[in-house]
Amino acid sequence: MEEEIRKEFMELLRLFDEGKLQEFKKKASECPPVDIAEGLEEIEEDDGRVLRVFRMLPKDMASDVFSYMTSDQQQLIVESATNAEIHDLVDDMFMDDTIDFLEEMPANVVKKVLQNTDEGTRKTINQFLNYPDNSAGSLMTIEYVDLRDYFTVRKAMDYIRRTGIDKETVYTCYVIDEQRHLVGQVSLRKLIIAPENACIRDIMETNPVFALTTDDQEEVADDFRRYDLTSIAVCDKEDRLVGIITIDDIVDVIQDENTEDIKKMAAIIPSDEDYMKTSVWSLVAHRLPWLMLLMISATFTSTIITHFETLLSGAVVLTAFIPMLMDSAGNSGSQTSVTVIRNMALGEVETRDWVKVLFKEVRVALVSGIALAIVNFLRMVIFTKVSTMIAMTVSITLLCTVVIAMIVGCLLPIGAKRLGFDPAVMASPMITTIVDACSLVIYFMIASFVLGL
Amino acid sequence: MEEEIRKEFMELLRLFDEGKLQEFKKKASECPPVDIAEGLEEIEEDDGRVLRVFRMLPKDMASDVFSYMTSDQQQLIVESATNAEIHDLVDDMFMDDTIDFLEEMPANVVKKVLQNTDEGTRKTINQFLNYPDNSAGSLMTIEYVDLRDYFTVRKAMDYIRRTGIDKETVYTCYVIDEQRHLVGQVSLRKLIIAPENACIRDIMETNPVFALTTDDQEEVADDFRRYDLTSIAVCDKEDRLVGIITIDDIVDVIQDENTEDIKKMAAIIPSDEDYMKTSVWSLVAHRLPWLMLLMISATFTSTIITHFETLLSGAVVLTAFIPMLMDSAGNSGSQTSVTVIRNMALGEVETRDWVKVLFKEVRVALVSGIALAIVNFLRMVIFTKVSTMIAMTVSITLLCTVVIAMIVGCLLPIGAKRLGFDPAVMASPMITTIVDACSLVIYFMIASFVLGL
Repeated sequence: MEEEIRKEFMELLRLFDEGKLQEFKKKASECPPVDIAEGLEEIEEDDGRVLRVFRMLPKDMASDVFSYMTSDQQQLIVESATNAEIHDLVDDMFMDDTIDFLEEMPANVVKKVLQNTDEGTRKTINQFLNYPDNSAGSLMTIEYVDLRDYFTVRKAMDYIRRTGIDKETVYTCYVIDEQRHLVGQVSLRKLIIAPENACIRDIMETNPVFALTTDDQEEVADDFRRYDLTSIAVCDKEDRLVGIITIDDIVDVIQDENTEDIKKMAAIIPSDEDYMKTSVWSLVAHRLPWLMLLMISATFTSTIITHFETLLSGAVVLTAFIPMLMDSAGNSGSQTSVTVIRNMALGEVETRDWVKVLFKEVRVALVSGIALAIVNFLRMVIFTKVSTMIAMTVSITLLCTVVIAMIVGCLLPIGAKRLGFDPAVMASPMITTIVDACSLVIYFMIASFVLGL
Repeated sequence: MEEEIRKEFMELLRLFDEGKLQEFKKKASECPPVDIAEGLEEIEEDDGRVLRVFRMLPKDMASDVFSYMTSDQQQLIVESATNAEIHDLVDDMFMDDTIDFLEEMPANVVKKVLQNTDEGTRKTINQFLNYPDNSAGSLMTIEYVDLRDYFTVRKAMDYIRRTGIDKETVYTCYVIDEQRHLVGQVSLRKLIIAPENACIRDIMETNPVFALTTDDQEEVADDFRRYDLTSIAVCDKEDRLVGIITIDDIVDVIQDENTEDIKKMAAIIPSDEDYMKTSVWSLVAHRLPWLMLLMISATFTSTIITHFETLLSGAVVLTAFIPMLMDSAGNSGSQTSVTVIRNMALGEVETRDWVKVLFKEVRVALVSGIALAIVNFLRMVIFTKVSTMIAMTVSITLLCTVVIAMIVGCLLPIGAKRLGFDPAVMASPMITTIVDACSLVIYFMIASFVLGL
């Protein structure tokens, strides 16, 4: 929370504490809801003020503030709210925010909320709660403007004026037929420019981009990016319009998907939890499995080294360069794999491009590897006391290692995607293990050959 | 490019090739501009069709298609366009797209474009080209709706109807005074619901969020995320409105910033270039510096091992576990650093939280480290022939290593941010080098002690 925003909120709280409630309400109504919600977060929970401040907020902004609050505070408020208060709160909230909130609540809170909503809303809530996580259905909301294709522009504008205040957006209106099939869409910009007696049918776009409830949120986000959308229609399997998704939720999806990919690349099992609120045990549960797996898979490298023990005891100096070789392998492998994975995620590289990508990476590897090998050779000859033969062995291994690392780092993620696995999981740590083993074998083989051991 | 979109485009191209130009124009006008631009990309460049197809596009969509094309094709088109064509093209394009396009063009193309634009536009272009990269100024566009606070709603709506078609968005209108100072903003939704004779002054929001031309694009993106904006006003140092930024450009900024962070974490110097079009030399230039630096910094580890050479020649078996120890250190260090860096980027963790974060990470490290050490001990005792003493040495080192890696992985990025450096650069590879050195020293010290060598 930024200092300036915090100061604003403290000022607000002071008005509340001094009982200047009119001034408090006036100032609160000028404050962005997200700032009030974050301000409330800073108040100690057992301090009864959170509840009292919340109840005193201007009625039309309470539901907005509520939707930005943490789950803990939402639960606190619902538990001490009256039935009438809950009814009004849910009534004022957008359906997507209601669903986000209910998904985090324990069963008794969900029950209390459902008991205090109208039959229709309750049915919709139950239906929405059943959409799979990360699907378009779980993101959408039902507060959209639906027009009929036989409306005139005048009638459409009247309809928007009457109902628009409760809609999540009025800037794109969706046109449906008697069976609620999506037949087109029209922007408010077009509506206000068009003559009043024009027919919607004649000015609407007839092939709007739309999503299915079952589509993955990542695909939906791709459509938003590609077509510069600010909202999208969501249809069921029979092409009936059932909701819309707006850009503000997509921005969050994009951030979440990025966070997920970044975590996977760092060998962390992704979770949606807020770091500062996640327990130590939960953090361990998301990290230890990978650490364990990678530790055990390092058995390979131990076995390889044990196998060459005689060689090593004849030239202990070889050991000194194992870390450098393995780090260089790891770094160059992860440079390649992260580049490839990211470009696949952004749609810049497709699996069918694999030959092109491989050819490019091999050339990058050769240039980088040769440069590293030369610098390393000079460094070892000039600054250390090892023989030229050892320096040669290490440098040649370095070149081979970098080339192998880049090839593996390129092929593994593409192969994973081709087989339907998540390429991000194939990033650095997995590749490191494979490349480590390869580079050790190469190292010892070259050493035996060059040193004649 | 998806199969379906490609097929649509091929159909379009067939109409063109068969000379059915009326049908071609009709079909093209129903196609999203981005799809046509990507379709054209697939045509060989020396095939004269790119130019001929482009010239045949419906006039009102040519500039849209143009703004989605690759720089190479844009250059091709401008080079062979007539002066009048260039004038119309630039006239129809939004200022932000014009700037994006010109930034990639060689000087002679920029000159040709500037020679064919009106005096006013030319002045604006020159001014915009001077804003620093990644600043709000370099992202904004000038096609916004500016209202005066004394306008009635009726007058404002008339104004929007007359000029709205050329604006990037009409959904948020900005209210300015005589000196063009930003005094408020009003949404189109509010305008259409308000009575026609209401005054803008009475219905506008008076303290809109705005950006300065010099603000970093990342801060602007944070404002969009925080306040769920779809556009934002951009002011100069004197608070005069000079442009707006719309959400579609912010979505791209968010993706670019994520890509940049991901690359930095993988020890790649970020660039904006398109991977498939980047030359091998440029890829090397963005990767080799880090590989070289990290290789040279691995001199530390070599020095440490050389220092303990006598110890090692007495117990060559110790070598077998160096890779496992170092990989575990690297993996746990990067888990922590990536978690901390990402949470700082998302604003979930602030540098002042460092004690809390450290305490959490130390506990995670202890739990994970102990679990790993126990499993490793059992694995070594049961499946290998090494002595219990060696197994003990390796396991204790493993525990210490994981704890140190997580502490370094936590403190280094936070410290970097506190000192004003970019935390993402402090991710895995940098940390690996430090932690490698620490774990080797610990390993050998424990080994000397336990084995009495």
